[in-house]
Amino acid sequence: MTWLDLPADTLFGLDNLPYGVFSHGERTRRAGVAVGDQVLDLSAAAEGESFGRLLGAGVLNPLLAAGPDVWADVRARVREWLSEPRHADRIRPHLVPRNEIRSHLPVEVADYVDFYSSEQHALNASRVFSGGDDLVPPNWKHLPIGYHGRAGTVVASGTPVIRPAGQRKPRKATEPSFGRSSLLDFEAEVGFVVGVGSELGAPVPIDEFPRHVFGVCLVNDWSARDLQGWEMQPLGPFLGKSFATSMSPWLVPLAALEHARVPQPAQDPEPFEYLRGAESWSLDLALEIRINGHLVSSPPFATQYWTAAQQLAHLTVNGASLRTGDLYASGTVTGPAKDQRGSLLELSWGGREPLALGDSGETRAFLEDGDEVVITASAPGPDGARIGFGEVRGTVAPAVV
Amino acid sequence: MTWLDLPADTLFGLDNLPYGVFSHGERTRRAGVAVGDQVLDLSAAAEGESFGRLLGAGVLNPLLAAGPDVWADVRARVREWLSEPRHADRIRPHLVPRNEIRSHLPVEVADYVDFYSSEQHALNASRVFSGGDDLVPPNWKHLPIGYHGRAGTVVASGTPVIRPAGQRKPRKATEPSFGRSSLLDFEAEVGFVVGVGSELGAPVPIDEFPRHVFGVCLVNDWSARDLQGWEMQPLGPFLGKSFATSMSPWLVPLAALEHARVPQPAQDPEPFEYLRGAESWSLDLALEIRINGHLVSSPPFATQYWTAAQQLAHLTVNGASLRTGDLYASGTVTGPAKDQRGSLLELSWGGREPLALGDSGETRAFLEDGDEVVITASAPGPDGARIGFGEVRGTVAPAVV
Repeated sequence: MTWLDLPADTLFGLDNLPYGVFSHGERTRRAGVAVGDQVLDLSAAAEGESFGRLLGAGVLNPLLAAGPDVWADVRARVREWLSEPRHADRIRPHLVPRNEIRSHLPVEVADYVDFYSSEQHALNASRVFSGGDDLVPPNWKHLPIGYHGRAGTVVASGTPVIRPAGQRKPRKATEPSFGRSSLLDFEAEVGFVVGVGSELGAPVPIDEFPRHVFGVCLVNDWSARDLQGWEMQPLGPFLGKSFATSMSPWLVPLAALEHARVPQPAQDPEPFEYLRGAESWSLDLALEIRINGHLVSSPPFATQYWTAAQQLAHLTVNGASLRTGDLYASGTVTGPAKDQRGSLLELSWGGREPLALGDSGETRAFLEDGDEVVITASAPGPDGARIGFGEVRGTVAPAVV
Repeated sequence: MTWLDLPADTLFGLDNLPYGVFSHGERTRRAGVAVGDQVLDLSAAAEGESFGRLLGAGVLNPLLAAGPDVWADVRARVREWLSEPRHADRIRPHLVPRNEIRSHLPVEVADYVDFYSSEQHALNASRVFSGGDDLVPPNWKHLPIGYHGRAGTVVASGTPVIRPAGQRKPRKATEPSFGRSSLLDFEAEVGFVVGVGSELGAPVPIDEFPRHVFGVCLVNDWSARDLQGWEMQPLGPFLGKSFATSMSPWLVPLAALEHARVPQPAQDPEPFEYLRGAESWSLDLALEIRINGHLVSSPPFATQYWTAAQQLAHLTVNGASLRTGDLYASGTVTGPAKDQRGSLLELSWGGREPLALGDSGETRAFLEDGDEVVITASAPGPDGARIGFGEVRGTVAPAVV
């Protein structure tokens, strides 16, 4: 129930209420909550509230650091404001049409880690590169493989993605060459943002996941496959990834995803104890990927082999500390079907089977200058409603070299 | 010339003047300059100066962001204060004995990147692991291999290093097991700290190195070889490194290292143009590594294959931006002689030839609880003087698991 005039099929109803940072006209960066087609200026609406002081930083970090009790309090108050008619007159002036705002990065990213947790993606990557091999790496089912990425080049949705240059050595070449990447790709991923940090030397138990992680977003882990292929042995991806990683503007709080929680797929072998939680954090998110407006893939998130709770436990089991604003991503989300693949590498099978863009007559092996990639997602909410994640959007800009 | 009573053989004369952050008694975190056996409280001494406003943050980031002209200005003023007797009465109260201070991280680290730029180390690593192979990876001489590490676990010198736990699979084991790392190691490295950031999409030309990098420090990139060995294929080191990376307290400005610059060793094949600079940034640093007070190695830095200027150009050639506080490290510094190796992995040849700790009768294959590792370095200054880097120190604390 709300005094707001919400569209019937909105993905941003009162059971969602994701947080972001926006500017609008004279209003500089401020905290907002997406509701229907509007954004509540939370920084303004919360004046006088005890949590108001957490909302003036231009990023959500202070709110995230405040912890689950404050998160629950803020969420309850915002729901109350938007539900009870007695608040309507005070709150209405703080609502802004969502299509008029400019979104910014919701958090100052501390460390960025990227995992590799879709079995189907790992299998596809192995098959595309080695041509036929049907195995994931030997450690893959024992631990959620991950690596650190570049936090400083995590960018807001909508930021142009400039085609990188660098070294690459095609398989048939005897020497490497330098130039623009010709194998530019996207990776559709789900991101998790840490609110409450942890102490160095103190692993975070898997069941503490919801006490540390604030919310969920979408990530496009842009990848230059040619740069990556030449550089990544022996120390992993570096310049093939670090030119840009796009993050969606809205952080959907874990509290909004209770109806999206589903049993975790069976794991064989049984993981070590630190990776076994009392509850499943598999999430039934339905992703969609569009290139230049054409739906090219619909990856399911529920069947990922490793959950975000397992990833967090693994990330800290060596005593590594967490900081507010840490972002970690799932790795490419890929399902078993052809139209559930989360990267062009898989969708075009390494470029060998160019992907048709709808009925346009166009195909893509890899991304071309001007291509726009949009990843969206939604999840089940209460009473048949859906919880929306908005979108992470990026357009390929020509190389500057 | 100085009115200070400097020890004759000090490594912290007026040609050094490195910057750090310290606390002392009631004085909370403030900027300092090491001189002789003392520290100048720069935050206090600079009151009234135009750059005074850059020194109150408890980290050096604002000073670093201010750029080379300000760096030169501050350095000139500090030299003047410590040289000219007319300043003595005003400055003397701002000097504190260095053995009374507590040092902190000099900067808030933005992104941390670790390179792999000693050819001898790469060869040794290859030989230890594969047993006899005499080759560096095929890309190694074409690009400075690097990867992102965890910025949030870069710790100040002196911070205890808690032995991590995690998964490992010894070669002869058929299944991985979970437990405390038994192959804990150090890596002696040289670190470079970025002052002036750069824009996304704009590679930093190699000759712009001194306009972006503020100064140099020492880094101990602690490594759990068993965790690292099991996890690092295919995406690189992760938990085997992320439990702690120690950084020395004093940033030696590039301006203090003019006499340490030496010609770069020949590179074959000739690197791509973006890796060819007009001037050499090879630096003649002499490192020393002590375990429990015993000198175990003296790695030379001058012969590293890739320089810090090449590393910076490579790091940004894909358009990745820099931020103030970015830290990147050289990779393990290892020379050709046995007593020039920069890690225990090499010094004990993978544990097969335990290293004698001086005449103590003790040996080490890998680090034991309670072991203290201290890395120091010095470089040529003017007139036969030496420029000291101080030390990065850490003691192994028992695992908590």
